[in-house]
Amino acid sequence: MAKYEGVSKSVIQRLPRYRRYLKDLLNRGIHRISSGELAQLMKLTASQIRQDLNCFGGFGQQGYGYNVDALYEEIGNILGLERGLTAVLLGAGNLGMALVNYISFSEKGFQLIGIFEANEKLIGQTVHGLTIRSEKELEDFCNKYHPDVAILCLPREEVQRESDRLVNCGVRGFWNFSHYDLFMDHQDKNIVVNNVHLGDSLMTLCYQVNELDRT
Amino acid sequence: MAKYEGVSKSVIQRLPRYRRYLKDLLNRGIHRISSGELAQLMKLTASQIRQDLNCFGGFGQQGYGYNVDALYEEIGNILGLERGLTAVLLGAGNLGMALVNYISFSEKGFQLIGIFEANEKLIGQTVHGLTIRSEKELEDFCNKYHPDVAILCLPREEVQRESDRLVNCGVRGFWNFSHYDLFMDHQDKNIVVNNVHLGDSLMTLCYQVNELDRT
Repeated sequence: MAKYEGVSKSVIQRLPRYRRYLKDLLNRGIHRISSGELAQLMKLTASQIRQDLNCFGGFGQQGYGYNVDALYEEIGNILGLERGLTAVLLGAGNLGMALVNYISFSEKGFQLIGIFEANEKLIGQTVHGLTIRSEKELEDFCNKYHPDVAILCLPREEVQRESDRLVNCGVRGFWNFSHYDLFMDHQDKNIVVNNVHLGDSLMTLCYQVNELDRT
Repeated sequence: MAKYEGVSKSVIQRLPRYRRYLKDLLNRGIHRISSGELAQLMKLTASQIRQDLNCFGGFGQQGYGYNVDALYEEIGNILGLERGLTAVLLGAGNLGMALVNYISFSEKGFQLIGIFEANEKLIGQTVHGLTIRSEKELEDFCNKYHPDVAILCLPREEVQRESDRLVNCGVRGFWNFSHYDLFMDHQDKNIVVNNVHLGDSLMTLCYQVNELDRT
């Protein structure tokens, strides 16, 4: 795979959003769009869009605009969605099960191949075609199937221990929903972590609503 | 309430994270910390921390550091957590129920006062002490209880219609989990929207893991 040098994290984080809007356009039968029109849809500026997409070589043609099909596909390629990275989920409680039911993993570049849980009551149940396994099977499973990433929906006190187990099994990416910032000091091992703190987002909304009342 | 002028959105978004770390410190019996020590914990720089907290007048004293109790409380005040804004949830499917079970609303500044759903099978069930109501009762409920914000866990095709209903009922904030960017063109009405796209976060992780393999 080609490396995209010097692309900032904020540009990368915007690519999925571009892709959503491009998919909407395709669903509406629109195959060509100017940066100005796309900007209006996405509430961005046209120059912001041109600047973002130029990071990857640019896809627009002067006087023609963007080819929506090509741009949609190319953003998928940049994100690497077609590789089908494999994922395991740790924690089959409410949030874990909601993610399994709510997220189209395959559309987002992942194949969910295993669900692990400590609670005996949940082990053996089937969700989306996967049987919930005991967390004791984690090493055996990882040695056999080599998952790329782990989704952590665990109590916070278990996160560091379980993520260490997973790193030892070769897992290189974490999507962490636990109320705990996971940091990885395994820099030589090249681990990436995406901590999602829904509570932080809710408190930010609290500030913003209160701000409406401030004088 | 006092207005905090010129504080950037990115600073506001970091405040909940500061608050989590300060709470951890209090739980560990630590009541005083230097910006350097806090920086090390949070993997930030000390100057970043001083810069962020100075936006609100600063809380540190040269040679003493930060008073953890006072800073924790003040960040709560800045966010306005003590006001107890009221919230309703629309959509009692998997994700909605996971949020109700997973998020401590009261700790994040909100009191959840109503859950609304269109699916007859779910209406009447009780979750966290709240009975799931029919979405047809929304206007009556809002006219009576005046919720401040709505949490949207709806199919994307319902989001715009339902949010318009809610705005007409006086709702001023949205925490939107639907696969749809909610924009509000009611600027005179002062509406704030926080769109949460979990799928975007997962695709970003996909890029980052793939990036490890790029040469």
